[in-house]
Amino acid sequence: MDKHAVSKLLEIADRWYSQIKRAEIPYISLPTRTKHNIEYDEGTEVWKYGEKETTRTASTAKSALHLLKMAYVVGFLKDQIGENRSSTLREMYYISEGWKRAKFGAQDESNFLVEDLEIITELSREAFHLRPEEDGASIFGPIKIREQTRRGDKDIHCVEDVGEAGYSIPNNVERLTFLENDAKFVIAMETGGMYARLMENGFSEEYDAVLLHLKGQPARSTRRMLKRLNNELGLPVVVFTDGDPWSYRIFASIAYGSIKAAHMSDILVTPGAQFVGVQPSDISMYNLPSDHLTEGDIAALKAELTDPRFDTEYWRNQINLQIKLGLKSEQQAFAARGLDFVTKEYLPARLSEMGII
Amino acid sequence: MDKHAVSKLLEIADRWYSQIKRAEIPYISLPTRTKHNIEYDEGTEVWKYGEKETTRTASTAKSALHLLKMAYVVGFLKDQIGENRSSTLREMYYISEGWKRAKFGAQDESNFLVEDLEIITELSREAFHLRPEEDGASIFGPIKIREQTRRGDKDIHCVEDVGEAGYSIPNNVERLTFLENDAKFVIAMETGGMYARLMENGFSEEYDAVLLHLKGQPARSTRRMLKRLNNELGLPVVVFTDGDPWSYRIFASIAYGSIKAAHMSDILVTPGAQFVGVQPSDISMYNLPSDHLTEGDIAALKAELTDPRFDTEYWRNQINLQIKLGLKSEQQAFAARGLDFVTKEYLPARLSEMGII
Repeated sequence: MDKHAVSKLLEIADRWYSQIKRAEIPYISLPTRTKHNIEYDEGTEVWKYGEKETTRTASTAKSALHLLKMAYVVGFLKDQIGENRSSTLREMYYISEGWKRAKFGAQDESNFLVEDLEIITELSREAFHLRPEEDGASIFGPIKIREQTRRGDKDIHCVEDVGEAGYSIPNNVERLTFLENDAKFVIAMETGGMYARLMENGFSEEYDAVLLHLKGQPARSTRRMLKRLNNELGLPVVVFTDGDPWSYRIFASIAYGSIKAAHMSDILVTPGAQFVGVQPSDISMYNLPSDHLTEGDIAALKAELTDPRFDTEYWRNQINLQIKLGLKSEQQAFAARGLDFVTKEYLPARLSEMGII
Repeated sequence: MDKHAVSKLLEIADRWYSQIKRAEIPYISLPTRTKHNIEYDEGTEVWKYGEKETTRTASTAKSALHLLKMAYVVGFLKDQIGENRSSTLREMYYISEGWKRAKFGAQDESNFLVEDLEIITELSREAFHLRPEEDGASIFGPIKIREQTRRGDKDIHCVEDVGEAGYSIPNNVERLTFLENDAKFVIAMETGGMYARLMENGFSEEYDAVLLHLKGQPARSTRRMLKRLNNELGLPVVVFTDGDPWSYRIFASIAYGSIKAAHMSDILVTPGAQFVGVQPSDISMYNLPSDHLTEGDIAALKAELTDPRFDTEYWRNQINLQIKLGLKSEQQAFAARGLDFVTKEYLPARLSEMGII
């Protein structure tokens, strides 16, 4: 795996070398990364970058400097992989202090360059031993995992061998193997309050469910984990969030991918993931405590109506209904009907409607 | 433990009952919760509320409503404890939907009322089975813990039995027992990047250190964990953060307590905790990559100069030096000197200077 990553990185330098040998000014071409250049891929059912390309050629000082920085990063990553070390994006940014003119001006710039490398090599930054800052999610449920650690392999059953907080997903999900499981589906939840609610109410045991706490907008490792649970174990994935436009984007990033990581869609996206709620229609059906939509919420809902990822009858209906209602509700709002309502009434009804249980 | 919590809650109702029997208008008295009413307690070495009190009496409609809400909350918590259930602050807020005139207008109001109850009963909200939303921190190091879970006791060694993310501290730290340990001290770190750096560099093994990831401003469970590690196991606690005014407040909340939770100081604060860095003097001594202080940073530093918690020679010198330098540095900035610098040079030097190793 490491050898493959190094050879993919060195291909970039090889390409420049050939360009120079052919008396061409060295350049790189990359897909344009905007909302207008993502397309639905029928084969894999995820959103990916389209055909539009941006080329950076060393004929201008600015682009030449960009290629110089890329050369330094390639060199640094090659050494890091060779020494079996790893670093965070932030550390790499600071390491560039020693790179003279190739020093990054801001971390956005180095982050963006790493994304360029991901696109060019078709590898994720974890393959270059670049660690994310953010934590992975927690899971709890009837599944046994083998994690390859620096201290050897650890076999962990996500009910028997963990405390009340569950098992923390490591940064690099590729180090996990799924050993055995009695799970029927995975339910990913936005808030820690709901994750703890389902644990306390025995939902995992009753429905053989793997509970996963997304911790807000899910980290890449979390999305990769969901993808693998779905893909390798064939477990359906359902997503349960607050009922507001920002939460729908959490669902969309899991089920359709994100613009920022469209080049990683194949490994990060779970196309079959289904949205449980809170649906705008739930707000009226269950008379949930709600707040008024802010102007920002309404603008976000309207933006979603033009976002290709939400271009389905279901989402158009729900989003238009929400704009009409002018309301949003949090998932914990079900507590207004009692602490058991969500696990005894709402989820069983929704999940059987969706064909999950 | 549960019985004690219920009886402390019912004392509040008892007090009102006696007041009414004596033909007094029912009231509650509480310490005033502002920066001007926290005082240093010599005996326990932490900051606590002073003598100033605020009284709420049912002689006005507003305060009467406040007491009504408190009565509903007391009733709810009593039932919850009796049924061995728990809920989040957010769920309790939603549950108040059914309390007619005692319904909370906003969550700030119900949170504040729970803090009032903590002050009156001298118990933490966890004792009322109120769960925080936030997650606890992660720890990694030579210590074995027994966690009492709904699924029975789990014995977990925080190196042998955990993955690369470490052991996640549960919401309620009172459910933990420390079994055995080979640790010499605890190092609490602000960022996940530094936590992973120390793990990767073998710092825990080399110095018998327990690594703890604070995840920014530490949750109450994290501060309680540090207090218990220090108090029960006699382990020194050191805190390693970014070098900016916001990070010094993270240290202060661990070592001196916070205004918001001054009533919980006895159980949450670790008075002996020491600050490792990043010190403003490190920025110049190690020539660390730095950013200019913003106006907000400077205002925060100046506020700290009048904060009783920072009223020591060390902090006055460091804060004045930082204002003079006009710079701040992150802990990961040590990476500019190489990925090993922090564990091979900086920390050994600082920790031996501090008498920890």
